[in-house]
Amino acid sequence: MIEKPRMDIRLRIDFGPTASLGPGKVALLEHIERVGSLSQAARELGLSYRRAWQLLDDLNHSFREPVASASVGGVGGGGVQLTAFAKELIAAYRRVEPAALSETRTHFGSLA
Amino acid sequence: MIEKPRMDIRLRIDFGPTASLGPGKVALLEHIERVGSLSQAARELGLSYRRAWQLLDDLNHSFREPVASASVGGVGGGGVQLTAFAKELIAAYRRVEPAALSETRTHFGSLA
Repeated sequence: MIEKPRMDIRLRIDFGPTASLGPGKVALLEHIERVGSLSQAARELGLSYRRAWQLLDDLNHSFREPVASASVGGVGGGGVQLTAFAKELIAAYRRVEPAALSETRTHFGSLA
Repeated sequence: MIEKPRMDIRLRIDFGPTASLGPGKVALLEHIERVGSLSQAARELGLSYRRAWQLLDDLNHSFREPVASASVGGVGGGGVQLTAFAKELIAAYRRVEPAALSETRTHFGSLA
């Protein structure tokens, strides 16, 4: 209790039995948004292309709207663009995270 | 957007590089508190005794105070009692969870 606690959280949101969003998927979406390529996003995150593709495919079927659309060349060869919906998901997640961390600090502050 | 979203969250709190608390460990502590036995708590949670013991040992070394003390017979044979500190951890986690879920609903309500 002499140091400031360096707390952090990992938050996974379940939207139903087959749809979830956590830090890994959000990071993937953010990388795709920045680099416009699934293979490069995967590389930067240390994921196999197959794993990144699975996560993106999973996200594309998790909600009422897709999160990404492939441009010329297909998902593998060409670029990938996030939908406006995906950007809303990222933004919502990045707003919830600090709010949840703040709640955590409030309740665990004296315990950690 | 016609159904009420059935959102849920899984929150893991990291207190440092080697100390974390998530739904699995909290459930284990709660079961130990209720049944007073690590082996029975493990059984009820579908964990191997070894896995439950590892989680408890991990928790016992994660914070400035232990979370459990073994009574006569040792951790395996005898009973296990939670410390007051463990009960505070459980209580804090169970207060943070609904607060974080409420934040999640606020920010994701229209997206899910």
